[in-house]
Amino acid sequence: MRALFLGFGNVGRRVAEILADRSAWPGLADLDVSVIGITTGSKGALANPAGIDLASALAEVRAHSRFSGHPDASPLTSPEAARTLDYDVLVEMTPLDLPSRGKGAIDHIRTALTRGRHAISANKGPLAWGYRELRDLARERGGAFLHEAAVMDGAPVFNLARYCLRGNVIQRIEGILNSTTNFILGALEEGTSLEAAIAQAQAIGVAEADPANDLDGWDAAVKIAALANVLLGGNLTPEEVERESLSGIGPDRIKAARERGCRIKMVCEVFREEGRIAGRIRAREIPLDDPFALVAGTGSILRLTTDLLGKIVLTEEEPDLTTTAYGVLSDLLSITLPDPAITR
Amino acid sequence: MRALFLGFGNVGRRVAEILADRSAWPGLADLDVSVIGITTGSKGALANPAGIDLASALAEVRAHSRFSGHPDASPLTSPEAARTLDYDVLVEMTPLDLPSRGKGAIDHIRTALTRGRHAISANKGPLAWGYRELRDLARERGGAFLHEAAVMDGAPVFNLARYCLRGNVIQRIEGILNSTTNFILGALEEGTSLEAAIAQAQAIGVAEADPANDLDGWDAAVKIAALANVLLGGNLTPEEVERESLSGIGPDRIKAARERGCRIKMVCEVFREEGRIAGRIRAREIPLDDPFALVAGTGSILRLTTDLLGKIVLTEEEPDLTTTAYGVLSDLLSITLPDPAITR
Repeated sequence: MRALFLGFGNVGRRVAEILADRSAWPGLADLDVSVIGITTGSKGALANPAGIDLASALAEVRAHSRFSGHPDASPLTSPEAARTLDYDVLVEMTPLDLPSRGKGAIDHIRTALTRGRHAISANKGPLAWGYRELRDLARERGGAFLHEAAVMDGAPVFNLARYCLRGNVIQRIEGILNSTTNFILGALEEGTSLEAAIAQAQAIGVAEADPANDLDGWDAAVKIAALANVLLGGNLTPEEVERESLSGIGPDRIKAARERGCRIKMVCEVFREEGRIAGRIRAREIPLDDPFALVAGTGSILRLTTDLLGKIVLTEEEPDLTTTAYGVLSDLLSITLPDPAITR
Repeated sequence: MRALFLGFGNVGRRVAEILADRSAWPGLADLDVSVIGITTGSKGALANPAGIDLASALAEVRAHSRFSGHPDASPLTSPEAARTLDYDVLVEMTPLDLPSRGKGAIDHIRTALTRGRHAISANKGPLAWGYRELRDLARERGGAFLHEAAVMDGAPVFNLARYCLRGNVIQRIEGILNSTTNFILGALEEGTSLEAAIAQAQAIGVAEADPANDLDGWDAAVKIAALANVLLGGNLTPEEVERESLSGIGPDRIKAARERGCRIKMVCEVFREEGRIAGRIRAREIPLDDPFALVAGTGSILRLTTDLLGKIVLTEEEPDLTTTAYGVLSDLLSITLPDPAITR
């Protein structure tokens, strides 16, 4: 299986590290992937139809922050690579560009699927702004469009729905899916000011230099739209998601919640309303005996309410980069290995 | 798809009610199941190769606690029905018989699989005492052996492992899987005596008339062995599981735990030890910020620790009979409908 990697940030590099050190992961013994291209926005690109040596690619980026000295260095951009290289699966791991509504990533995936290739997206933009088109295109051309790492890191959100909830109607989804706001809420509870909490989050890498997209709920809105579209068959864009900004949550509200035995959490919700699928993010008072109250650090949680199975909750505890990389690897496994049929 | 039901207790009847009222469950529209036999230990049996009318079977049992007045009444025993009726899938829902180490249920399933038919088990005994043989027999004869309802009601424990954790090595499993002891621990925390707590549990149907199998950890030990054998490839019997009895947990221990900010929970554990798979159930002090501390009522929880994905937790909240029945229905769906391939 020949893979083209678009993007070589934290997730792309961790996927490459794991693939380069396959013997450390016994469950990946049968995963046969050869990376024939890696493109980036600022580090240059690599291409080699015989397969790139991932250890040397990683070493090159570590040493020089660029691929330019590598023997497989290439002038290809991501769109060019998606259009021209001979890969079986395109792995979209570029950063989400909110102003363009994920256009770059959507274009890359559309190109791959149009060519009848498979596409994996660790980028949630294509699920929020292009899901229906891309899913239909994949079906029409016979490729797979998988995206396990796009929401909740590598936790098997989409595989759970695909394989483990058959026969159910999902009625409602609730989740805590944005680590930045969750971390900051924890700091606010301990009496830290919003400014200091943001600085703390930035210091440990939980918040970006410009935290506005997290604070104002844009990151969560993109995830809500992704879940609504994939799991409930909606056609929701992040712009249509009702958002509440963390900036409006003052110490008084946190204190009042605590006095009622609750904690404030920013909760993502997807639900059916008047025959359509709607989504919102809002600050909710969560009682301390609800597992949503316990989500801390970079952890996340998702509750699915269904007609037959009832309520199940999936919690991801202390995820790290390997967890997110696993989302991409599980999609690669889904594509390269046969479906796990019940008679095997 | 022709199904033979062995057992018509709470779960069997709920499955039948749902199948008889298909229009209430939109996700089951494509589930094409005709029940051609129902056998029980004390209610008699029904058989009709053209399909039993489930509504009338349910009405008959409700009115007379027996099938004898039904037009499809039959003298068949479960072993005879398993051996002679022409079904596609045998659904084993008889009560677990601990003294015989699940022999009756294992025999029924062995008969079906030997005939090249599929088998579904809501009974955990066959996973604890016969898994390896039955799994190998299913593979050899081309049938499926599914058992989603056997542990944690209908929560997708086995489907999660089969479909959503590919590539991972499961290193450890922890769970709260016995509602009786969990309910009683909750009552003990509130100062109720053990005797009164047991009586309360019996009054609401959480404990059986003879609660010894729950209190002494046998129910949990059977579940631990089932998880060890299916999810970790072990070959563990319930007798080999280290057990701690709830009867040894006095009010002092509960109070001491609370003073340390913890609650006592009976935790099932499966882990690797000296190259083999081991299991135990023990009373553990759980800090209040661990979701295990929150499991109440008939809820249950499972934490899987893996090498790639890290730690994920599956929680089932407020399950009812429909939840357990869904475990059986999801297995019927797996057998009757094609696998959910990634390119569909």
